[in-house]
Amino acid sequence: MTAKIIDGKAFAEALRIRIANHVDRLKSQHGITPGLAVVIVGTDPASQVYVSSKAKQTAEVGMNSFKHELPADVLEAELLSLIAALNADPAVHGILVQMPVPKHIDPNKVIETIDPAKDVDCFTPANVGKVQIGLPGPVSCTPLGCLMLLRDELGSLEGKNAVIIGRSNLVGKPMMQLLLRDNCTVTVAHSRTQNLPEVVRAADIVIAAVGRPQMIKGDWIKPGAVVIDVGINRVDAPERGEGKTRLVGDVDFAAAAENAAAITPVPGGVGPMTIACLLANTITTASLINGLVPPSDLTA
Amino acid sequence: MTAKIIDGKAFAEALRIRIANHVDRLKSQHGITPGLAVVIVGTDPASQVYVSSKAKQTAEVGMNSFKHELPADVLEAELLSLIAALNADPAVHGILVQMPVPKHIDPNKVIETIDPAKDVDCFTPANVGKVQIGLPGPVSCTPLGCLMLLRDELGSLEGKNAVIIGRSNLVGKPMMQLLLRDNCTVTVAHSRTQNLPEVVRAADIVIAAVGRPQMIKGDWIKPGAVVIDVGINRVDAPERGEGKTRLVGDVDFAAAAENAAAITPVPGGVGPMTIACLLANTITTASLINGLVPPSDLTA
Ligand SMILES: NC(=O)c1ccc[n+]([C@@H]2O[C@H](COP(=O)([O-])OP(=O)(O)OC[C@H]3O[C@@H](n4cnc5c(N)ncnc54)[C@H](OP(=O)(O)O)[C@@H]3O)[C@@H](O)[C@H]2O)c1
Ligand SMILES: NC(=O)c1ccc[n+]([C@@H]2O[C@H](COP(=O)([O-])OP(=O)(O)OC[C@H]3O[C@@H](n4cnc5c(N)ncnc54)[C@H](OP(=O)(O)O)[C@@H]3O)[C@@H](O)[C@H]2O)c1
Repeated sequence: MTAKIIDGKAFAEALRIRIANHVDRLKSQHGITPGLAVVIVGTDPASQVYVSSKAKQTAEVGMNSFKHELPADVLEAELLSLIAALNADPAVHGILVQMPVPKHIDPNKVIETIDPAKDVDCFTPANVGKVQIGLPGPVSCTPLGCLMLLRDELGSLEGKNAVIIGRSNLVGKPMMQLLLRDNCTVTVAHSRTQNLPEVVRAADIVIAAVGRPQMIKGDWIKPGAVVIDVGINRVDAPERGEGKTRLVGDVDFAAAAENAAAITPVPGGVGPMTIACLLANTITTASLINGLVPPSDLTA
Repeated sequence: MTAKIIDGKAFAEALRIRIANHVDRLKSQHGITPGLAVVIVGTDPASQVYVSSKAKQTAEVGMNSFKHELPADVLEAELLSLIAALNADPAVHGILVQMPVPKHIDPNKVIETIDPAKDVDCFTPANVGKVQIGLPGPVSCTPLGCLMLLRDELGSLEGKNAVIIGRSNLVGKPMMQLLLRDNCTVTVAHSRTQNLPEVVRAADIVIAAVGRPQMIKGDWIKPGAVVIDVGINRVDAPERGEGKTRLVGDVDFAAAAENAAAITPVPGGVGPMTIACLLANTITTASLINGLVPPSDLTA
């Protein structure tokens, strides 16, 4: 078998068109322009790139984009009071503080200060809990992106054996909640798991979120499984010239593609979905803040 | 093999002694008497029995017990304002509203009104989220009881394959969080799971939380597994006389005991742990409310 390559870039583009239509609807029917505020502390180049592309995509779907840049040595109290001001600002429906923040700032305090109603990253305990309980609200962006790709590929996920490798608060654990809600039988594996290859071999759906280049081998993949590779790892690529690097996932893509029915590439798979899902969450929070039912095609 | 029978009644008694020692310590060293408020609406006999034994055990460990009985036709607003008063009362460190509440009262509103700092049932989204993230706070009582029995039986749970059958907000989902935190590889199964016997056969630890009498068969249990039966099901027992009933678990106990290394009976297994863990949570919240580190032997 040679797997279908799941095109996350194309899916994210189509998702952004759906989001833009919801923005139009909110504007014309309800007089609401969804607004996303992004806060960045310091000048880390990777963070700057992320924040710029978030701001660009926010504007492209017709939302208001508010960017706040603070110096690397800003006092924690100043950052928290900016967040408080954004909490109180009715034009702002989503607040994102780009992580990591400098070491003198406590990220837990930052997260605790964000109003859960505007917590589009789904980092606050209240929103994490709502996902488990099944109450409406924002959903962790990367897992939501994975879920959308899986639903698109498989239709119903009901009764599938899903194995998630990785149990981080950012990816693995919220992914477990979403797959359970979609009626998968869900297994979560991690660094203490015994006999990982055997665990993965039972999976109809494999989610790799480990952060180790090409660790998931091709012969761990059950024939016909769908593989979602969340990993983004930069490795040396001397074949491209001295000092060159390239991105690879957590899955040995070429070998896994021999067994899988469908697989996400790295780059171009899960990666492009994350920002699109951030925008989707902003539609969800803008709807809920205004007492509207959030659109079902943008959430879990 | 014939399994060791895990004595939940004896374990709960020993746990209550530890709790009483912590109450003494909080009183003598910190001048704090932990207080648990229990609110019951209406006269459902089963609920009355639960509430009485909660109040009795609370007093026995030396805590303050506050009981509030409201008529079945109480207005929702009155119940919510009682909860608000308990939230504000510094003598109260835990608030428990006995479920179910009458149909004219929205249980979600009740839960939302309880201050998460005093939510000893771990029902509020913020506390549910803290368990997933790994922040200190109260932990769902029945899963906490199961975890304590497992740790006592196995020492470390690291690397064990744990299979939970059931994904309720009350039992299955918080159990998944606790087992994951204790480094098990965790699988959650439910009514849409395919081939449940095979899934259970891979388990070193089986948690049955289904609510179907003796549904988990003996030959589904891997030799040497530890079986925790959360189910409490009342079934006819004509052998005890006409119209008589008895309690059975979700596991076919006699057959499972042939394969398991250890198993909880019903009654006398998980059941007695739940109230003891409610008291344990009250120590946890009383500690956190007063800026003290909660005792590590009473939580996950
Ligand atoms: N596409 C996107 O937009 C996006 C978003 C977020 C993250 N990512 C990428 O996804 C990957 C994971 O991110 P993360 O934030 O979840 O990482 P993380 O917080 O480092 O978590 C990694 C998880 O993998 C587990 N693990 C480590 N080594 C393992 C091994 N040998 N066998 C089995 N499990 C192992 C760890 O287990 P323990 O818990 O036992 O330590 C941990 O649960 C990274 O490559 C990251 O760059 C991509
Ligand atoms: N010892 C204690 O103190 C204590 C405390 C709480 C509960 N309990 C007992 O524990 C049991 C479970 O309680 P609960 O509140 O978790 O129950 P619940 O809310 O009814 O949940 C039952 C779970 O079992 C699953 N299930 C139902 N039929 C199944 C089947 N044929 N195969 C596989 N899974 C199936 C359901 O799946 P779906 O989600 O797909 O419907 C659901 O997730 C009950 O007997 C209850 O009395 C005891």
